[in-house]
Amino acid sequence: MRTVFWDYDTNVVKMIDQRQLPWEFVVAEFDDYAEVARAITEMYVRGAPAIGAAAAFGLALAAQQSQATDRLALIHDLEQAAKVLNAARPTAVNLNWAVRRLLRVAGDEELETADDVREALLQEAQRLADQDVEINRRMAYNGAELVGDGDTILHHCNTGALATVDWGTALGVIFAAHEQNKKIHVLVDETRPRLQGARLTCWELKQRGISFDLIADNAAGHFMRTGQVNIVLVGSDRTAANGDVANKIGTYKLGVIAKENGLPFYPVVPTSTIDLDLANGDLIPIEERGPEEVITVFGHAIVPEGITARNPAFDITPHRYVTGIVTEEGIVYPPFVKNLRQAVQRAQERIESKP
Amino acid sequence: MRTVFWDYDTNVVKMIDQRQLPWEFVVAEFDDYAEVARAITEMYVRGAPAIGAAAAFGLALAAQQSQATDRLALIHDLEQAAKVLNAARPTAVNLNWAVRRLLRVAGDEELETADDVREALLQEAQRLADQDVEINRRMAYNGAELVGDGDTILHHCNTGALATVDWGTALGVIFAAHEQNKKIHVLVDETRPRLQGARLTCWELKQRGISFDLIADNAAGHFMRTGQVNIVLVGSDRTAANGDVANKIGTYKLGVIAKENGLPFYPVVPTSTIDLDLANGDLIPIEERGPEEVITVFGHAIVPEGITARNPAFDITPHRYVTGIVTEEGIVYPPFVKNLRQAVQRAQERIESKP
Repeated sequence: MRTVFWDYDTNVVKMIDQRQLPWEFVVAEFDDYAEVARAITEMYVRGAPAIGAAAAFGLALAAQQSQATDRLALIHDLEQAAKVLNAARPTAVNLNWAVRRLLRVAGDEELETADDVREALLQEAQRLADQDVEINRRMAYNGAELVGDGDTILHHCNTGALATVDWGTALGVIFAAHEQNKKIHVLVDETRPRLQGARLTCWELKQRGISFDLIADNAAGHFMRTGQVNIVLVGSDRTAANGDVANKIGTYKLGVIAKENGLPFYPVVPTSTIDLDLANGDLIPIEERGPEEVITVFGHAIVPEGITARNPAFDITPHRYVTGIVTEEGIVYPPFVKNLRQAVQRAQERIESKP
Repeated sequence: MRTVFWDYDTNVVKMIDQRQLPWEFVVAEFDDYAEVARAITEMYVRGAPAIGAAAAFGLALAAQQSQATDRLALIHDLEQAAKVLNAARPTAVNLNWAVRRLLRVAGDEELETADDVREALLQEAQRLADQDVEINRRMAYNGAELVGDGDTILHHCNTGALATVDWGTALGVIFAAHEQNKKIHVLVDETRPRLQGARLTCWELKQRGISFDLIADNAAGHFMRTGQVNIVLVGSDRTAANGDVANKIGTYKLGVIAKENGLPFYPVVPTSTIDLDLANGDLIPIEERGPEEVITVFGHAIVPEGITARNPAFDITPHRYVTGIVTEEGIVYPPFVKNLRQAVQRAQERIESKP
C-alpha cells in the first residue's frame, strides 16, 4: 500500500496515519483539501516526497470540490486552495514544487472545460505519485553502489516508504543494498522529538528483515568516532543550489562528525527537492514547531507544567560536510553549483520526454 | 538538603531518589552497603561527585555492618565491600577515588581498634562530602568568569546540586553567574536516553529562577551554528591526563560542533575526576547499559517488542575540542598534560594542609 493515494471508487484522498504507527495501522480518508492541508501540518504524512504527493492529490481534490462551472473560475478556486496547501509546512520544497506543477497543468489552454481541468489535475497528481516511486527506485540503486558488503550504516529520521509515496530515499538505498544481498547493519537514530526513527524506520527495517539497532541520537557521534560506522545516509527536505541541505533536526551534527572522522556523508535526494532558486541553505525557512513535541513523548509529559521549550524541526548542513548527493540522475559530487543544476535539467528532460 | 548524606540519628545513608524527580521527591535510606552499590547502579544517585560521596558513605556503612572485632578483620571486610562498590559503575573515576581514599584512612596504623576505624571512616566520608561542596563553589566562581552578561549557555545532562553532594559543577557555574546578576539564558539538552536534562536540570534552574528553554539533543547543533549560543558548559565523569574527557553520551558532538563554530567548550571538573593514571580517553572504560533505557521513556515503550538497541552511557571528547577545563584550582588550559598534573597537585596539597 502507498503512503498517500487517490481512491478512484470513492474519489477521496487516503493516507496512512503515521502518527499512530507502529502501534496502529490506520488509513485516514479526506474529502476536503483543507483537511489534507491540516493533515500535512499535523504530520499524518511527513517526508518531503510524500508531502509533495499529498499536496498534489489535495489540489486535485480541491478541483473536485469547487462548484465552478467554467475553467477560469475553477483556476481561481485552485489558486486559493494552493495557498492553503502551500502554508501547511514551510521547509519541504516538494510541497510548493508539486502545487506549482499542478497549477501549470491547470493553466494549460488546451483544456477547454472545468471538467477537463479536473480530470487533467487528477491525472497529473497520479503521474507525480507514480514518478515518485520510479525516481526512488532509481535513486536507491544509484546509492546502493556506495554501500559495501558488511557495512554499518548510520541513518537519521525516517526516509523509507513512509516518507515517500513508496520505497524511500536514504532508507530506499538501504533496501536496495539488502536486495543485492549485501550483509548490512543499520544504526537507527531514534530522532527526537517525534521519534520517526524509533517508530517508523525500525518498523520498516523489521518488516524487511534487515539487521539494525536503535540508538539515542546522542550516541551517533560515539559510534562514528569509535569506528563502528562506515557510511551516513540521510534524506533532505530541501537542498539549495550550492548543495547545502535542509533536513530533520540533528542532521547537521552528523555531517560535521562524519567529516571530522573521515566518514562519507550522503544525502539521498530526489531532484524535486533541489531548489535552484536558493543560493544557499541559510535562505531556507526553518519551521519551528510547538514546544509540546519536546515536552511530551506520546502524550506523556517528560517535564512538569510550566517548562518552555524550543523546537526547530530542521537544520542546515552546509555543503562542505556533504561528500556527495545521491539523486535519481546519479550521484552528484562537488562542485555542487554546477553539477546539481545539470542533474535537475536531466531529470526535467526525462519527465518531459515521457508521455 | 544534600543529594547523599549520613543520618547521625539512625546511622543510615540517605539519598534523594533522583529517578523519581521531578514528579516525586523521595528520600531513600540504606542500612546495607550492598544496597548502596545497587542504588548507584540503578541511578538513584548519579553524577561523578555524588557517586563518589555515596560510595564513601557506603564504605562507612560497611564498617558499621561488619561484625569484626579487631582492626585487621574489619579491613578485610572493607576490602570486600570496596570491590562491590567499585563494580557499581565503571566510568566515573570518583567512585574508585573515594573508595581508595577511605581505604587509605582505614589502613592508618595509628588507629588501634576496629571501632577507631569505624569512626575514622565515617569522619572521612563526611569530610569528603563537605569538601565536595566547598570544591564545587570554588569551581563555580572560577568558571563564572567565563560567562558574560547576556550569554546563552548550552548545557548537557545534569551537573547541578543533584550530580554532586550540593551546588554542582557546570550547572554550579551557571548558578554562580546568576548570583553575580549576569543576565543569562540556558539551552537545556534533554539528554536522552535518561532525560537528566529534562527532568533534573530544568527542575534545578526553575527553582532558582534562571531563564531557560528545554531542547531536543538533536537541536543543539542548529542553535550553535546559527549564533544562538555563546558558551558550552558540561561536566565530566573522568578526565584523562591529556585532557580527553569522558562524559554523558552526546557530549562529544557538542565539543566537535563548538570547535567547528568557534565557540568555547569548557568541561567543569573537580580534580577528583582527573585520572592521571590514564594517558588518554580511549583507555577509559565506557559503560554500555541495557537497551530498555532507549526503548522506553518513563516505562512507556517507544517501539514495539522485539526491537534491539545499543546504549553507551558515555562518550569521549578528545582534548583537541576542549577550550579549557574549569577546576577548583582555576581554569586549566593546554598543554593539558602538564597543567592538569599541576592542578591535581595543588588540590592535593590543599586537602593535606587542612585538618
